[in-house]
Amino acid sequence: MAAAARAAADAGLAGLVLTPGYDLRYLTGSRAQTFERLTALVLPAAGDPTVVVPRLELAALKESAVPELGVAVRDWVDGDDPYALVADALAGVDQPAVAVTESMPALHLLPLAQTLGVVPVLATDVLRSLRMVKDAAEIDALRAAGAAIDRVHARVPEFLVPGRTEADVAADIAEAIVAEGHSEVAFIIVGSGPHGADPHHECSDRQLREGDVVVVDIGGPYGVGYNSDCTRTYSIGEPGDDVRRRYAVLQEAQRAAVAAVRPGVTAEQVDAAARDVLAAAGLAEAFVHRTGHGIGLSVHEEPYIVAGNALPLQQGMAFSVEPGIYFAGEWGARIEDIVIVTGDGAEPVNNRPHDLTVVPVR
Amino acid sequence: MAAAARAAADAGLAGLVLTPGYDLRYLTGSRAQTFERLTALVLPAAGDPTVVVPRLELAALKESAVPELGVAVRDWVDGDDPYALVADALAGVDQPAVAVTESMPALHLLPLAQTLGVVPVLATDVLRSLRMVKDAAEIDALRAAGAAIDRVHARVPEFLVPGRTEADVAADIAEAIVAEGHSEVAFIIVGSGPHGADPHHECSDRQLREGDVVVVDIGGPYGVGYNSDCTRTYSIGEPGDDVRRRYAVLQEAQRAAVAAVRPGVTAEQVDAAARDVLAAAGLAEAFVHRTGHGIGLSVHEEPYIVAGNALPLQQGMAFSVEPGIYFAGEWGARIEDIVIVTGDGAEPVNNRPHDLTVVPVR
Repeated sequence: MAAAARAAADAGLAGLVLTPGYDLRYLTGSRAQTFERLTALVLPAAGDPTVVVPRLELAALKESAVPELGVAVRDWVDGDDPYALVADALAGVDQPAVAVTESMPALHLLPLAQTLGVVPVLATDVLRSLRMVKDAAEIDALRAAGAAIDRVHARVPEFLVPGRTEADVAADIAEAIVAEGHSEVAFIIVGSGPHGADPHHECSDRQLREGDVVVVDIGGPYGVGYNSDCTRTYSIGEPGDDVRRRYAVLQEAQRAAVAAVRPGVTAEQVDAAARDVLAAAGLAEAFVHRTGHGIGLSVHEEPYIVAGNALPLQQGMAFSVEPGIYFAGEWGARIEDIVIVTGDGAEPVNNRPHDLTVVPVR
Repeated sequence: MAAAARAAADAGLAGLVLTPGYDLRYLTGSRAQTFERLTALVLPAAGDPTVVVPRLELAALKESAVPELGVAVRDWVDGDDPYALVADALAGVDQPAVAVTESMPALHLLPLAQTLGVVPVLATDVLRSLRMVKDAAEIDALRAAGAAIDRVHARVPEFLVPGRTEADVAADIAEAIVAEGHSEVAFIIVGSGPHGADPHHECSDRQLREGDVVVVDIGGPYGVGYNSDCTRTYSIGEPGDDVRRRYAVLQEAQRAAVAAVRPGVTAEQVDAAARDVLAAAGLAEAFVHRTGHGIGLSVHEEPYIVAGNALPLQQGMAFSVEPGIYFAGEWGARIEDIVIVTGDGAEPVNNRPHDLTVVPVR
């Protein structure tokens, strides 16, 4: 919180106002999920932080670090004006600019803007420098999550049996994700055959068959809540030459992007490293999404590895490198590792083979 | 959508912009949950609606009513400016005021405000008149959900056995919620003994014992997604005189609030009806929350039955009536029914007995 307040001061802000979400969890450990009743951490750039909380939620607050940190708590009951409490907690600061967490809903943001007399800005730029660069404990948490999802991928081939549905496979994977130590399942994509061409397909009643290429993208929170996220692509039986050839280009694109990662390189340069390999092979159109996203308490967070993001990478950043190729109505493939930026390169936390894994048909 | 556009026009708005959430689901059936990539329904007060959607999410959109309604779809890819697409979809309107859904996150609201050159207002007032007043199909859905959760409450006494933990009971209830036809569990509160004094306690490893008063507040979406939400309070073995006496006041307060419901009465008058009964018995301080909340696709929505809400009730509105009394460190109780405003009163969709249900100790 002290570092966040300093970053706010450096940015010329009067303070930060954080409603429930990952920023609040990052700073206080609170897993609050209140929506229509305002819960907010008010962090003045100078001065002491305050938590504004519905009296109903006081007990839940005890499970966060708020009590042991000695943060002031201002509770309120239905009928009170919680936005006035936020303004009070910012009182004494003489700059009007306030930043809010990305997830603050319009329901609170608009009345807060009215009470403060100023439209807030996003706290993203202030907090990204903290949240993007993981400390040693966070990196250990990401490594443990990565190892756990690798263990799940090691078991995926046994689930991919012709005649079973994507949903059957997803159910097995869900069980394995929890059995390997995740606290819950965050997402499971089993995209077989033509479904693999939709990057955000989840799963369906489509039955697997010999010759299917199957995209399996899975993850969830582990331990204190840092997430895993790993994609591998499988072939049920031997793939055709065309699949082999295009997959080899994808594999080279993913390798090139990981190889491009080091401090000082920009996020968009990593994206371009993957994209250039695919473009050179005539597959530019097949790669319809960005190369990656940061990861931590949230599955998707800064830094985004995307064209237009000139952010220079720093040691300790963690993100996915996950180019994919998609052929509508036919098949798709994606390879995804979470990598951590080291002093001079990238440390992948996922270490399963990157080849198209051929699952023998029994 | 036509009614929402008319309501926007009547309110002097140029249009509505709805990101994923209950408003979007209400208008289009979309269950989209995208966060960092903008998905939005743009509904000009005059003119045709447009859905702005990441190309990645086009396939998911097919599961909504958007294709059959013939709504224009503008897809975008990473690197494009989706806020400019929203502005385009509003082009031709000559009033700057735009309203947004309550759940729109700051991440999208702030750049949208910048692109539009105007700070949006909340769409709540425009959409509440549609969403608050349920049509016949919605009322049937709420009745079916209410009957289902009543069947679960009918089974709760068998779960409440001394020595079992709140978590054990919650697991049984979760199974029963799904077995009785809900598509999922939305929430389960099992507040035994002193835990009952925290209105938002969920469940814990505390073991039930003879003499416990236990608050059980449960619900979930049913059928097309309308929610159940019902609280009953149980006593494991015979309660003491003090519990009996105070519970009787609570029961009278809940009855009085339901009896106060009819078209034209305000939301705050219903709240006062419960509060007055408790205050007259010296229990004003024990009732720490509002009397109720609207319910539909969302468990908590307009109208809120709370002091300060002068909204007159209308036939077809649906909300909870759930006064509670809480004695820190000792016990708590709450009685909750969902009621629908009829032509001249209230129709409860929950019909289990309101008495403190005494569970015999076996």
